[in-house]
Amino acid sequence: MQDIKVGLLGFGTIGTGVVKMFQQNEEVISRRLGARLVLSAIADLDISRDRGVTVEDGVLTNDANAMLTDPDIDVIIELVGGYEPARTFVIKALQNGKHVVTANKALMAVHGQELLQIANENGVNILLEAAVGGGIPVLSSIRENLCANNFSDVLGILNGTCNYILTRMTEESDEFADVLKDAQDLGYAEADPTFDIEGTDTAHKLSLLISMCFGTWVDFDQIYTEGITQISSMDIQYARKFGYQIKLLAIGKMVADGIEARVHPTMIPDSFPLADVRGVLNAVRLMGDFVGPVMFNGSGAGMDATASAVMGDVMSLARNILGDSKQLTPALGYQTKQITMLPIKKIEDIFSHYYIRFMVKDRPGVLAQISSILGDFDISIRSMMQPERQLGGCVPIVIMTHEAQECNVLHALDKINKLSIVNEKSLFIRIENELP
Amino acid sequence: MQDIKVGLLGFGTIGTGVVKMFQQNEEVISRRLGARLVLSAIADLDISRDRGVTVEDGVLTNDANAMLTDPDIDVIIELVGGYEPARTFVIKALQNGKHVVTANKALMAVHGQELLQIANENGVNILLEAAVGGGIPVLSSIRENLCANNFSDVLGILNGTCNYILTRMTEESDEFADVLKDAQDLGYAEADPTFDIEGTDTAHKLSLLISMCFGTWVDFDQIYTEGITQISSMDIQYARKFGYQIKLLAIGKMVADGIEARVHPTMIPDSFPLADVRGVLNAVRLMGDFVGPVMFNGSGAGMDATASAVMGDVMSLARNILGDSKQLTPALGYQTKQITMLPIKKIEDIFSHYYIRFMVKDRPGVLAQISSILGDFDISIRSMMQPERQLGGCVPIVIMTHEAQECNVLHALDKINKLSIVNEKSLFIRIENELP
Repeated sequence: MQDIKVGLLGFGTIGTGVVKMFQQNEEVISRRLGARLVLSAIADLDISRDRGVTVEDGVLTNDANAMLTDPDIDVIIELVGGYEPARTFVIKALQNGKHVVTANKALMAVHGQELLQIANENGVNILLEAAVGGGIPVLSSIRENLCANNFSDVLGILNGTCNYILTRMTEESDEFADVLKDAQDLGYAEADPTFDIEGTDTAHKLSLLISMCFGTWVDFDQIYTEGITQISSMDIQYARKFGYQIKLLAIGKMVADGIEARVHPTMIPDSFPLADVRGVLNAVRLMGDFVGPVMFNGSGAGMDATASAVMGDVMSLARNILGDSKQLTPALGYQTKQITMLPIKKIEDIFSHYYIRFMVKDRPGVLAQISSILGDFDISIRSMMQPERQLGGCVPIVIMTHEAQECNVLHALDKINKLSIVNEKSLFIRIENELP
Repeated sequence: MQDIKVGLLGFGTIGTGVVKMFQQNEEVISRRLGARLVLSAIADLDISRDRGVTVEDGVLTNDANAMLTDPDIDVIIELVGGYEPARTFVIKALQNGKHVVTANKALMAVHGQELLQIANENGVNILLEAAVGGGIPVLSSIRENLCANNFSDVLGILNGTCNYILTRMTEESDEFADVLKDAQDLGYAEADPTFDIEGTDTAHKLSLLISMCFGTWVDFDQIYTEGITQISSMDIQYARKFGYQIKLLAIGKMVADGIEARVHPTMIPDSFPLADVRGVLNAVRLMGDFVGPVMFNGSGAGMDATASAVMGDVMSLARNILGDSKQLTPALGYQTKQITMLPIKKIEDIFSHYYIRFMVKDRPGVLAQISSILGDFDISIRSMMQPERQLGGCVPIVIMTHEAQECNVLHALDKINKLSIVNEKSLFIRIENELP
């Protein structure tokens, strides 16, 4: 039985999961592959810490470069994370004719175009299933079985920390800061949670999903990204009264004049399949022209689920090596020269439904003033609610709009915020209604 | 750009979807594949009927054999359905060195072992994504990205007709026969719905899922199969009161002494992810040792969704041809010689929780008699409900049991049914509780 030799860069939490999977699932792997996967080198700066898994003598090293130039190693798993030295390691691996498997969404979202170009020039591949949705096999499904579809949109709940916080805020009416602290104590949120709660992690993943679905490179800086720190329990409870939930959604849409790529708190109807995704779970809903809506859900993070995605990619590359295949399925599913650069729409130009909360003085005629300004900007009200009569000296008025353009909403709110009857800055949340 | 030539056997509903997809999605297909997919022949007995799609002159023929021996054709799509002549066609295609893509679950569930053996001997492949779950990419996910997992169980809602009927019975309290008639009028059920409502179609699909998950051949006759014709609106409403729904579930489990392979109406808790799958949708939930639970849902049938699955398989085979790969990913994901023949447990030997409904005379001491017999057979009661005091001269008593062995339940009910206080045959429904 042939051996395929693999090197692992980064022996942290996910790396430990990968080592466990190599060891525990050796039998099923070789029964499926018809060859042995051998983890022949692991590189990490810390070679002394006990990770709870046994590694054979001589496998663990702090010399990453030796692995990257070892002619016996066919596949490198990059789990270093971050931009550098991960980028330099990946480039070196590719230039030495090694395939790469990575879970590094930041690296691929920002430097993916460069890295895939280098892979292409060297006749090797970079697979990245673990970078999006943890164990959920969504990227490989887009690349493999769903690949004859034209996708029109992709929606995802891609950050377990945010979804855990929003679920708790919804189900227990707790405030953001309190739940964040609990999440940190439980290990669901990092000590510095900025990347998660500000939406950056979700935007990295969205960038990769959009590339896979639409065959386009995404300039990461153009993804509109808004986190969940401004969401209050009050808005969540008002949303509930309208039959909606608030989720941090990654939204990618192919529209007539380009692509929408945005991450923000989003109200979705209770009947919408993504509304049931609770706690740290992740889910992705794709819409293809033939397959229709398809949804995937499962563990979006964690040592074991992420290891599963990494190993699936290693197996895929091992099959290419064993079959001596002269053509690889490209990493993004499109032939490299067919990947375009579609324009991303500015957030001001999108059309959406909106939830808007005004905090106003409790006086007759207030609603007339507000709705008159909204009307001036082509924003029509679908429903209105005045949930309480008094809240700290002012009353909330909550409306849901019909479809409106974001720039109009921004202008209207600017004008409304200057009215003397308005006590504090008005707040809005975009709504994603059930797709056709 | 290279051409990959494809022949289509069977120009019915799904065949029409496939033709549409070849035509409408030509651009995305070649942008992904780096080659053109050309549908060069379509064979059907009826070559005159208008299917609403245009086919070039000379493509449509009633001579299937010409296509099966045409050296220019690389891939045959079999959409004839049923056992014969589909089996003979597939064998001939394989023996002529052509890869086969099929949506034929009956053929693959019953003759899969023989056909995959012939494929193997001829160095070609049979892919069958469209046979299970319509457009949902579950088989390719098991074979591709999830393939380093050991699976412990697979649960599926795999028949849209049954799920539509049960959803309507649940939400509108209608009876089976009435809903079936509506389903037929709406085109969700066949004029002869036997294969669907008796569970055979679901069992065919389960057989294939089990082979893929566990690397075993399944003797189709050993799958315990019970349809939904005995389910009454009364039991559905009682289940609701306990917080459960009734679904026709395909259940495959790897247990210590073999495999459980069974299709039957099953009570699942409202909180269970499969409980939300409504109407004609399909869903599959897999449990892998590393990935944990993963769920897929989408359109389980229909022209377009099934065409998507067929075309994904064609693309996969086309990539193998273009790469001139010396080793194919085997159809079931396991190397052929690694596929075992694990024993399937008899239904009498399984352990489950049970819902049991007794129809008894309304007399003191009735529950004591029943529970005493249940106790004799090691069946302990978890909860009991007497929903009405009077129903056509007798009262229902409904219980939920703790885990019990099926043979004990059968013996106990035999004995209870003979009691003079029992008015009609007692009925039971197996329960699947949330997995750990």
